[in-house]
Amino acid sequence: MNKQCGKPVTQIHLKPKMTVGELVGAMGKAGAYNGGALYRAAGIYEAMLRDKKTTKFFGLAGAMVPAGMGGIVSDLITRGHIDVLVSTGANLTHDIVEAIGCRHYHGSASCSDVELRHDEINRIYDVFLPNEAFEHFETFIQDVFSKLEPESKISISALLRHIGKSTKSGILHAAAKKEIPVYCPAVQDSMVGLQYWLFSQTNNVTIDAFADMPLLMDLCFSAKKAGALLVGGGVPKNFILQSMLMTPHGFNYAVQLTGDRPDLGGLSGATLDEARSWGKITEEAQAVTVYGDATITLPLLVAAVMERMHHD
Amino acid sequence: MNKQCGKPVTQIHLKPKMTVGELVGAMGKAGAYNGGALYRAAGIYEAMLRDKKTTKFFGLAGAMVPAGMGGIVSDLITRGHIDVLVSTGANLTHDIVEAIGCRHYHGSASCSDVELRHDEINRIYDVFLPNEAFEHFETFIQDVFSKLEPESKISISALLRHIGKSTKSGILHAAAKKEIPVYCPAVQDSMVGLQYWLFSQTNNVTIDAFADMPLLMDLCFSAKKAGALLVGGGVPKNFILQSMLMTPHGFNYAVQLTGDRPDLGGLSGATLDEARSWGKITEEAQAVTVYGDATITLPLLVAAVMERMHHD
Amino acid sequence: MNKQCGKPVTQIHLKPKMTVGELVGAMGKAGAYNGGALYRAAGIYEAMLRDKKTTKFFGLAGAMVPAGMGGIVSDLITRGHIDVLVSTGANLTHDIVEAIGCRHYHGSASCSDVELRHDEINRIYDVFLPNEAFEHFETFIQDVFSKLEPESKISISALLRHIGKSTKSGILHAAAKKEIPVYCPAVQDSMVGLQYWLFSQTNNVTIDAFADMPLLMDLCFSAKKAGALLVGGGVPKNFILQSMLMTPHGFNYAVQLTGDRPDLGGLSGATLDEARSWGKITEEAQAVTVYGDATITLPLLVAAVMERMHHD
Amino acid sequence: MNKQCGKPVTQIHLKPKMTVGELVGAMGKAGAYNGGALYRAAGIYEAMLRDKKTTKFFGLAGAMVPAGMGGIVSDLITRGHIDVLVSTGANLTHDIVEAIGCRHYHGSASCSDVELRHDEINRIYDVFLPNEAFEHFETFIQDVFSKLEPESKISISALLRHIGKSTKSGILHAAAKKEIPVYCPAVQDSMVGLQYWLFSQTNNVTIDAFADMPLLMDLCFSAKKAGALLVGGGVPKNFILQSMLMTPHGFNYAVQLTGDRPDLGGLSGATLDEARSWGKITEEAQAVTVYGDATITLPLLVAAVMERMHHD
Repeated sequence: MNKQCGKPVTQIHLKPKMTVGELVGAMGKAGAYNGGALYRAAGIYEAMLRDKKTTKFFGLAGAMVPAGMGGIVSDLITRGHIDVLVSTGANLTHDIVEAIGCRHYHGSASCSDVELRHDEINRIYDVFLPNEAFEHFETFIQDVFSKLEPESKISISALLRHIGKSTKSGILHAAAKKEIPVYCPAVQDSMVGLQYWLFSQTNNVTIDAFADMPLLMDLCFSAKKAGALLVGGGVPKNFILQSMLMTPHGFNYAVQLTGDRPDLGGLSGATLDEARSWGKITEEAQAVTVYGDATITLPLLVAAVMERMHHD
Repeated sequence: MNKQCGKPVTQIHLKPKMTVGELVGAMGKAGAYNGGALYRAAGIYEAMLRDKKTTKFFGLAGAMVPAGMGGIVSDLITRGHIDVLVSTGANLTHDIVEAIGCRHYHGSASCSDVELRHDEINRIYDVFLPNEAFEHFETFIQDVFSKLEPESKISISALLRHIGKSTKSGILHAAAKKEIPVYCPAVQDSMVGLQYWLFSQTNNVTIDAFADMPLLMDLCFSAKKAGALLVGGGVPKNFILQSMLMTPHGFNYAVQLTGDRPDLGGLSGATLDEARSWGKITEEAQAVTVYGDATITLPLLVAAVMERMHHD
Repeated sequence: MNKQCGKPVTQIHLKPKMTVGELVGAMGKAGAYNGGALYRAAGIYEAMLRDKKTTKFFGLAGAMVPAGMGGIVSDLITRGHIDVLVSTGANLTHDIVEAIGCRHYHGSASCSDVELRHDEINRIYDVFLPNEAFEHFETFIQDVFSKLEPESKISISALLRHIGKSTKSGILHAAAKKEIPVYCPAVQDSMVGLQYWLFSQTNNVTIDAFADMPLLMDLCFSAKKAGALLVGGGVPKNFILQSMLMTPHGFNYAVQLTGDRPDLGGLSGATLDEARSWGKITEEAQAVTVYGDATITLPLLVAAVMERMHHD
Repeated sequence: MNKQCGKPVTQIHLKPKMTVGELVGAMGKAGAYNGGALYRAAGIYEAMLRDKKTTKFFGLAGAMVPAGMGGIVSDLITRGHIDVLVSTGANLTHDIVEAIGCRHYHGSASCSDVELRHDEINRIYDVFLPNEAFEHFETFIQDVFSKLEPESKISISALLRHIGKSTKSGILHAAAKKEIPVYCPAVQDSMVGLQYWLFSQTNNVTIDAFADMPLLMDLCFSAKKAGALLVGGGVPKNFILQSMLMTPHGFNYAVQLTGDRPDLGGLSGATLDEARSWGKITEEAQAVTVYGDATITLPLLVAAVMERMHHD
């Protein structure tokens, strides 16, 4: 057989009551397209989590918390599998919404948005969030903000840590408890940001946009090895990948779960190979992209890796 | 709570050694985007398989057999879960390739196709198929063709049944054994077709393009209820859906796994709601589309449904 | 400058009343992503049309005629720019619908399909086709079929030629007038096919599925050079590309306009490089894929090339 | 004809030397899929630009400047067609790179990224940027930063205005000259940000993350009407749309050019209808999404609208 050929493709035969790890194993033996990529992603993510020398980054973009994926993230934090979290402001907003007891609801993507507007329901594809959740959110967060030290200057992650200490569940809570940093470079671009603007009308606490950079850079310079699980693109993906640009290192492990595509040129859909040209990830890095909806690929990936690590 | 809101979104918390059914159940409680759709698809597919009155169609498009998905299809046939299979010619070609003992191989999508050409390897995204497989294929299929009755006129499904009786494994074999029809309207558009053209140079057997229609139409007219699992679009999807157009009925169950998108107007990406306007599926039909790579969504869906049906 | 770098990217500055050719030229000087690809596609398509030695194939998939793209195709035929057309049955059905004076209508993709069903309107994304068009279609086509010679055996392209001779406009009409072959391997998979099944209930004309292959193969073997413009994927794309597989040649020019993506493994989204590994296109072939909706890319491409060729 | 049906679809017939406006007009008469949407987008964008009461927002995401789209943006600013620009940091970085005389180059998406790394070339899909550009960038921007008033506290837009005043061409220059604000909430997430971190190691100028909000909010509260052209998603899209959330108004005009898809739930691919449920755009707003690569759709849209406005 030609040496370019790897293992033979094994046709999948399913059994009732297969575990997720067994299913992903079967996808790996089939080995093709995104099913094959998912299996390779599980191998890379497992190696990354087992590698004690590796600083583990997690990028969270896309409306993942309203879709129920927040639980996976907070559990990963609690289990010590995330050292640095970078998130969009929206995910953190929805995390707080759930942490204060409000809920997102199963809805529909084919409905009248004008009618929803009249009913005071905000839509996120097929998830509904009644507007009253934002009223509770406002009450809660203004109270939290009011406890910030007047006239102080703080970083975005300090603001988020402060919020996390005031909640009893969710991502920010888990991160505060584990004392891992949560970065959100565009925090203004969220309900947290809009509420902070309201607060700043009558209060004087400066959020220093760059105050998080020194610690992050120290972290990157001191990291022996680095790995990243990137859910979606946007600011979290780039902010994580660029963090190594100033150092002599690059990421050694990288897994990307995205629904975007490379040919449009945007960084969200860019391949991880492209990141090698920049030195964001190392030449030898193990890296793979799984294209698809993260509401399917993230639970699959993490459940498969949890199963593998549980065998120890 | 506003009546438009369904159940609350439940954040996913994964456990080691979850079964696939449990994972899909958790996706259902999260309930959003394609993860939520996959859960609903499992419910519809389970109902369809359990409904004794339902004639069960399966559409197979996209290069699924080279990706190891053929085993799932042949198992579904063997278990009696497919009454009518409609496939592209390519999937049947690759099914025969495997049935005669040749293999597809794990390869790479980023390689030199000119080099592969020199090495006589055919690429299907990241799957490699050495060209010699087609030499064995030619020998096998010409021998099979040579046993067709001279001067006869047969249907495409009869040709495929004839091939299936000559193989010992795979989709066509399973279908021949279970005596279910396999339709492949564009059989010319495949290696099977090119080989048949070679055969027809020196032999006279007419493949009547429309000879399969009467039986299919009888089947559709007599079906009390009908259901379809559509993997990919193309000819299989449309041929299945249009088959009900001439009858007073429509499909009662429909699940579509596709990576295409609706806004380009093509039928492959069209929503199943669009099919309601045509009467291809009934007004009340349970129908759902799961967007994503079928190398992930098909094993997930079928494993989850097998698990549910195993509980009986 | 490093030799890997091509020309510098030129920022686009638009002027009022630019011609399409000027705009595509500006996209070429920008040179990036699909805008750059479109410019390269124009160069390849122009070279292909100007090359007297080249047999010119056109693949037509996706619901292009309901979207008004049929006029571009029939004009290309009339101008002698298409030697072989391969189409889905649906496009030909809709071509006949328009040729007999029925119309498609601007509609909406966000509407109630159940309501449309009650109003007897068939939806194709945001195009509406009243069901009565199919009543006229039935009357027309049954009359055309009735003029086929009883007890005869004909090819699919002969059937389509027969229809084209009975229409006064459109693609089939233009093709019949120019005497170019129209291939439609899956003709059964369309309203033309369903109507033919009706006809065949009481008439005996055999449509030989493989009767078109000898002429097509002769055409491929005798072609000095070959080029293809592929709109969408499906059967037309593969049928065109595979037609060269049996010959010692391959396509020398290939332009693909598609909205599909490669990573799902399906042929519709496959890169043209992949086709090099199979020998479907030559190692040196000029080939490019433009990703996007063909309702935008096809008019842009053809208008730009018409403008260039008009300068002679 | 059923009242749900709009105008009939007009088949497109192209003429040599058509202007872009004529081509887009023909797409509008065809009226289907994204070609039809592009025509409607031109109508909305024209109405928005002509409406003197409308504050005009422009969102710029995706690697548009490396692809040559920056010229379109700076021209729109110069012509007075943008009142507020919201951009990713990456686009502004590449804008500065070009403004200081460095260039991006035509490259290839299928190449060895490891080799590019060795050659010190950074890849953005098929665009190459030699690393030395960033050396010039560093020299330039550190010099610009060094002129900031020590110990001061400024907003992100003030920082960007300061940079724009130091350049002689490009987006930031045009914006500074026209005195329109440029917002970049996640400025840390870019080379500008990394360079600022370097600067901040030895200098003390605070970038107040929220200092831009009061002016933006004043602008939103005082806007009689508002319109937005959104190129790509990410932070710019959301930041623009959410800016109206705190006001009693919403956007009256909105055009979105995106390659993302709605079913993944992310805001980048979300429909503009979804934004109605939130009140980000008004119930009656004219809004349309054109799916596709903005390197094609943006030049087409703007050229068509320039042509229409030139007729006055």
